[in-house]
Amino acid sequence: MKSGMMIPALLDLVISMSVQAAPKESFLRPDKVPAPSSNQMTPERVELGKALFFDPRLSGSNWISCTTCHNPALGWSDGLPTAIGHGMKILGRATPTILNTAYQRKQMWDGRFRTLEEQALGPIAADVEMNQNLDNVVAELKEITGYHAMFEKAYPGEGISKDTIAKAIASFERTVVSSDAAFDRWIKGDEKAMSDYAKKGFALFEGKANCTACHQGFNFIDDGFHNLGLKGNQDAGRHAQVPVAVMMGAFKTPTLRDVALTAPYMHNGMYKTLDEVVAHYNRGGDVKENLDPNLKPLNLTEQEQKDIVEFLKALTGEPMMVTVPHLPQ
Amino acid sequence: MKSGMMIPALLDLVISMSVQAAPKESFLRPDKVPAPSSNQMTPERVELGKALFFDPRLSGSNWISCTTCHNPALGWSDGLPTAIGHGMKILGRATPTILNTAYQRKQMWDGRFRTLEEQALGPIAADVEMNQNLDNVVAELKEITGYHAMFEKAYPGEGISKDTIAKAIASFERTVVSSDAAFDRWIKGDEKAMSDYAKKGFALFEGKANCTACHQGFNFIDDGFHNLGLKGNQDAGRHAQVPVAVMMGAFKTPTLRDVALTAPYMHNGMYKTLDEVVAHYNRGGDVKENLDPNLKPLNLTEQEQKDIVEFLKALTGEPMMVTVPHLPQ
Repeated sequence: MKSGMMIPALLDLVISMSVQAAPKESFLRPDKVPAPSSNQMTPERVELGKALFFDPRLSGSNWISCTTCHNPALGWSDGLPTAIGHGMKILGRATPTILNTAYQRKQMWDGRFRTLEEQALGPIAADVEMNQNLDNVVAELKEITGYHAMFEKAYPGEGISKDTIAKAIASFERTVVSSDAAFDRWIKGDEKAMSDYAKKGFALFEGKANCTACHQGFNFIDDGFHNLGLKGNQDAGRHAQVPVAVMMGAFKTPTLRDVALTAPYMHNGMYKTLDEVVAHYNRGGDVKENLDPNLKPLNLTEQEQKDIVEFLKALTGEPMMVTVPHLPQ
Repeated sequence: MKSGMMIPALLDLVISMSVQAAPKESFLRPDKVPAPSSNQMTPERVELGKALFFDPRLSGSNWISCTTCHNPALGWSDGLPTAIGHGMKILGRATPTILNTAYQRKQMWDGRFRTLEEQALGPIAADVEMNQNLDNVVAELKEITGYHAMFEKAYPGEGISKDTIAKAIASFERTVVSSDAAFDRWIKGDEKAMSDYAKKGFALFEGKANCTACHQGFNFIDDGFHNLGLKGNQDAGRHAQVPVAVMMGAFKTPTLRDVALTAPYMHNGMYKTLDEVVAHYNRGGDVKENLDPNLKPLNLTEQEQKDIVEFLKALTGEPMMVTVPHLPQ
């Protein structure tokens, strides 16, 4: 192991182990959606990014758009165990929702991109996803007359480039945020917003089940990576980025916002229901090698497991209404 | 040739040759969208049909929905020369828009279905399109809890069946109709709605260019089939349904509504622009074998051809705003 790898690996663990319980207020929505100073959100940037996000002409086949897999009809994911990409090949990992990615400090299951701007071009260029050469994307978009004015309004003087494409898509993605769910109304004081079962579930989530070891704050993430002891997993996950043993088979903690909409679950879609996920954690995982130290058998009763699922459902709000853009010709 | 085949073939021609010029009023929108008495439109049927239309779980891969090819972002088509289907194989014909299919008496390029109800299941079952066994679709939809109530509201007591799936999709498709374009405002009396070029184009369209031989009435169709003398065409088209020589290489007259949104053009997408299409007709087609008798060299000037294109653009209205449905889990 190179010593330079030690710091990010330690940080991944430090982040994941820093909080064991938290006041209700820590789950409140941040005042604003974070955006980098080099790409502040404007209506024109969001509109452009939305068009690009829906536009199949970004792919090599001109048939696959970002929405093909990050489908707003299916919680900004695809409902599949693992993704399908160019040529309809089945890929190794599940399509993560793009909901609330604005609040993540690491993108992708293995965290190989930090910002949405860095991430946006990845799936376009990946030969197993949208299979398009990035220079070709720029050239093809330049041939679509209607895009010229849209880019000029969004990024005056910057033109159509990989950089402005990425920034526009990132701007749109930052609008894809969760709405208030029953849980939010409850933490703001509406006692009737959540059922007693869900309230018990939340107490277990923070307490006996220790879910908040990783699922923390408004977005229920820790920006860390964890090996959950999934049976049969052969995917090295974060280890490809940070080659230390504890990152072998470790994947990024996903948001739990709107989690009822994004079945199936885990990086490989191996569990169809939230009940199966909670049962997995109750067993403390199935494979002990490189297992995250937070996983251990929880001895939850059947009812307690159901209560946690009720709480998880209370994290699902009204999904965002999205109108289909009319793409420039 | 079987004698039973003669009548539909003759009808195809009779329809196509019955009108040479028409009063402006003949282009007015019909009072209501036609729907069969066995499947009258209700909000519940339309809502269900919209969900099904957007749902990739109707395909064998669970990845392709009706909207993948009939994309509301691209004029309810896909912008490709010819369609892409299951396995991302490139197919032989262009994806037709579903805009105004409610007004068609024949569906598909070769007219092999008459009603939208008959047509709706075709692409789901076709192994080169959505590649799903229809019994599987029914079984899979029955497993999605949220669909039960939607079907019950739409078709009380009828359950989830091939029949109700087809009827619901057809009901949604009947809402996909063109809006008033500049041309409509002009025929209703707003002289300034169309440019003088477009007005000259319309006069040519009805007169010297004889486009109304086939493109008639509100939807600019004749429900007929015509061999347009396309260079290199190997596709038998309507002949597979009606095996008479005149139907060899003949395809259904497509709507011209919103035609500026649905490039490329012709059944095989061989022309990228409307200018190329008009130039083709001006040449009277390129292949004389089985050529439709209406096609002959038009001797239009460059300006006249441009005027017709201006008129065609004036048939494009504001595209329909569509919100993405949230699919049941």
